[in-house]
Amino acid sequence: LAAKRRELASRYQLAFRLTGIATGSHGHAINPAGIDPKRALRRIESGKSIARLHVGDPVLDTLDFIRRRPAQILFEITPLDPIKGQPALDHIRTALEHKIHVITANKGPPALAYRELRELARKQQCHFRFEGTVMDGAPVFNLVEKTLPASRVLGFYGILNATSNFVLTEMEKGRSFRRALKRAQAMGIAEADPSYDIDGWDAAAKTAVLANVLLGVQIRPSRVDRKGIGAVAAEDLEKASRKGRVLRLIARVSRRGGRTVARVAPELIRQDHPLAQVRGTSSALVLETDTMKELIVTEMEGTVEQTAYALLSDVLTVAQSLS
Amino acid sequence: LAAKRRELASRYQLAFRLTGIATGSHGHAINPAGIDPKRALRRIESGKSIARLHVGDPVLDTLDFIRRRPAQILFEITPLDPIKGQPALDHIRTALEHKIHVITANKGPPALAYRELRELARKQQCHFRFEGTVMDGAPVFNLVEKTLPASRVLGFYGILNATSNFVLTEMEKGRSFRRALKRAQAMGIAEADPSYDIDGWDAAAKTAVLANVLLGVQIRPSRVDRKGIGAVAAEDLEKASRKGRVLRLIARVSRRGGRTVARVAPELIRQDHPLAQVRGTSSALVLETDTMKELIVTEMEGTVEQTAYALLSDVLTVAQSLS
Repeated sequence: LAAKRRELASRYQLAFRLTGIATGSHGHAINPAGIDPKRALRRIESGKSIARLHVGDPVLDTLDFIRRRPAQILFEITPLDPIKGQPALDHIRTALEHKIHVITANKGPPALAYRELRELARKQQCHFRFEGTVMDGAPVFNLVEKTLPASRVLGFYGILNATSNFVLTEMEKGRSFRRALKRAQAMGIAEADPSYDIDGWDAAAKTAVLANVLLGVQIRPSRVDRKGIGAVAAEDLEKASRKGRVLRLIARVSRRGGRTVARVAPELIRQDHPLAQVRGTSSALVLETDTMKELIVTEMEGTVEQTAYALLSDVLTVAQSLS
Repeated sequence: LAAKRRELASRYQLAFRLTGIATGSHGHAINPAGIDPKRALRRIESGKSIARLHVGDPVLDTLDFIRRRPAQILFEITPLDPIKGQPALDHIRTALEHKIHVITANKGPPALAYRELRELARKQQCHFRFEGTVMDGAPVFNLVEKTLPASRVLGFYGILNATSNFVLTEMEKGRSFRRALKRAQAMGIAEADPSYDIDGWDAAAKTAVLANVLLGVQIRPSRVDRKGIGAVAAEDLEKASRKGRVLRLIARVSRRGGRTVARVAPELIRQDHPLAQVRGTSSALVLETDTMKELIVTEMEGTVEQTAYALLSDVLTVAQSLS
């Protein structure tokens, strides 16, 4: 938001004010007149609470924070819980019930309760947007919604978990699993709990969101046939290489008859397949459509900046519908 | 249109009627009550004129055909003329002057006169859309316009000419240049004049359209530094392979200072680059943006069906703005 402040004003006649921040361990702050994000960041980075920036009655908890609604948009960016989706699910429900638009990068809620949240948003005449849940700000949901009219998504497969892909491609270079994982964590790309990346939960949650939204089915992350990269050994990569293949954690959904088959697992990919060249923190999704056959979107070397852009692009979708 | 008739009605409340067809060598036909496309196709495929399907005063020429405007949308799909853009340019100007929306897959007009046509369309409150000019129906212009808000395209590079790519990748398999080109023509992917593909004119025209639209510059195809694949020999491909590279016809635009550098030429691409895996009639575009860094769209094995979808997707953009 800070980097694009001028452009938002000149190109979209859009101004914004940060009126509240709720954190897990650094307190809450509400100020309808606006909070300086840099000041809040400085406090958090030096380990202090942001409660000092708060104006008005004390905040009881995050739901109380949301209910006070001094804002038009809630950004829900708590960490993933692939089983219960909490506390994000309650945050989002509360916001929508109070007619606050919701933009989230948390996969849990749309993976677990997409239909419920979509219907609640519709009823409340609010937006519920989540472009950042899959491949950061690379258009995936917006791609299908806004640029592939009259098309049907028949299935998809792709590389959706940056940490696993980073670890696998570092191992290809001869690094150990542990060292590669440590580097991913240092880069800030791993989930708060890295086992969610390594065990395939993050990819399974993304798979569920994609299936729910693009294929119109209802699949929970726990129903995705899931195998992570924890058991992959250096020998597996060497064996793959000798066969002209590479090992990648692939998320895959297809429909057979009326049945939906959803799977996350390490797969051998031919070196001449576009997905074989997706390395490090890059990610890619192959959409199988009735109109464009296979269409691939690839995000090169995603960082948290690209996740931030996902939230911004959703803000603009919301803003354009309100103007 | 025929394949999607039901879906257009149910999902978009959209019905259509084909009220006129103008051809280069099979005559013209106008019928405000509707022309059966299958009947017209049968006549054309058996070498006959479609004038038999015409109702009313004889059609003098294609501009006369357009001026009679029994239609809301003109599909301009004549072959490419990268120097003068004719007759497409006059067709499009005439249609817009008569308040007919224009959808084209012809690169010439937006390559040569994008600003003029955009302004004319704006003045006439008409749409001028051309998603099909680059990578068939794969979203390129729509991707930037509809899914990358508040982003700037800083440059791009990609594989944009299917015929050249098909020929190069067939040569990699050991086929001769001539046999590969003949196959491309038989598949219907080559331009009417294949020298436009082989000499890089088609890619240069696409490069100009992309630069004009996405970078806001004004470049004509003749100003693109252009080198085709005509001089590529089997030895070049072998030499590339020995260096761990492949040869691809790459279109590339970058800005250096205030200057725009636009080029089409065979380039050596590292085998581990995503573009190296773009083979046959597949195509790919790498967009360099300020928000998403490098974002790649890949169309796998495009055929004329995917070009047809480009026109359909533009119809839906037009229809949605009218409803």
